[in-house]
Amino acid sequence: MQIAILIFEKLTALDAIGPYEVLRNVPGWEVRFVGSEKGPIRTDCGALGLNVDYPLDEVTEPDVVLVPGGEGNRPLLEDESVLSWLRDVDSRTRWTTSVCTGALVLGAAGLLEGRRATTYWPYLESLRRYGAEPVAERWVEDGKVITAGGVSSGIDMALHLVGREVGPEVAQAVQLGIEYDPQPPFDSGSPQKAAPELVDLVRGVNGESGDLAALADG
Amino acid sequence: MQIAILIFEKLTALDAIGPYEVLRNVPGWEVRFVGSEKGPIRTDCGALGLNVDYPLDEVTEPDVVLVPGGEGNRPLLEDESVLSWLRDVDSRTRWTTSVCTGALVLGAAGLLEGRRATTYWPYLESLRRYGAEPVAERWVEDGKVITAGGVSSGIDMALHLVGREVGPEVAQAVQLGIEYDPQPPFDSGSPQKAAPELVDLVRGVNGESGDLAALADG
Repeated sequence: MQIAILIFEKLTALDAIGPYEVLRNVPGWEVRFVGSEKGPIRTDCGALGLNVDYPLDEVTEPDVVLVPGGEGNRPLLEDESVLSWLRDVDSRTRWTTSVCTGALVLGAAGLLEGRRATTYWPYLESLRRYGAEPVAERWVEDGKVITAGGVSSGIDMALHLVGREVGPEVAQAVQLGIEYDPQPPFDSGSPQKAAPELVDLVRGVNGESGDLAALADG
Repeated sequence: MQIAILIFEKLTALDAIGPYEVLRNVPGWEVRFVGSEKGPIRTDCGALGLNVDYPLDEVTEPDVVLVPGGEGNRPLLEDESVLSWLRDVDSRTRWTTSVCTGALVLGAAGLLEGRRATTYWPYLESLRRYGAEPVAERWVEDGKVITAGGVSSGIDMALHLVGREVGPEVAQAVQLGIEYDPQPPFDSGSPQKAAPELVDLVRGVNGESGDLAALADG
């Protein structure tokens, strides 16, 4: 199995690296980081440099494609070279997937039309403009398209994908391998669980930049 | 606050990127990726390129230092330039931290002597050789040293650190910002929860390479 993870300037790193760490641990699976141009890119806050190893035209038959989120994917919504690559590879993938606002890119490519889907919670209703039915779940599988919620949800979605593709035992071995036995010290990871004022705060920040760091001055 | 994350050839990416995604979201906090030499490195399986932005001698007063794990950190256990840098920065940090087998590097630097500490579960007993008392918890805080368990545990540890340093509200906002409301589809993330045969399997693989991908031929 070949997995293509699309990366780009100003992506949110964990959207991509969470699933990568799951999928790369499956025996025989190969992960490739692809993008519009080969070479270095920086994450949303600029603090981390990642590398695009493959330009889009060198990865044309991935079994799985994954689109992460981050403010940097907004230009992709109108980037026909990326959108047509997505439509083309989707015609042959076993699974077409997204994490966080990566779902908006799948939507812009026309791949969510008539499907149930999810995305990062402040953007959930935006899915309607792509003909999708928004669903507030950790991940949503509809046909071969699996969309995940915000940032960290890609870990859960990737384990689900491994379970679907090669069975629960391998997925459980990978889960143990990455010691994924989450014990968050707080319980505010969703808008249903967090205090209303924090929900308003994070929603407000995301309206601008998707980056809590903007709170530094506020 | 300045956070220095030590990275190196063949690190396990999620060990570093999980905490990065938490810590970089705290208003006013700056994350720097430091290493022995400035420039590109590759993760343990080789599939991902990251960048060392700062050589060790350019980051001498971080408030937090974090050492991730991965098979690539074994050479660091005998790399005096790295160990003496760690001892030096530790003398001024507010928090000295590790994820996964990063604890072994802290141990080799002499920073776990007489402390309760944890690490990636197959390596827990190895902590004794550094004078530490192994504790099978998700993360362990002893004085200003916080060690976390394997790979994904760094996310929990980093949220704990944010809570300790700037209070629960900011930590909860960050948790909501990264939608960290874990819902793993399986419950096998620790050796206490996974099937015994999976524990033996993963422990065996880790004896060699720390990489489940080695199972491809087995």
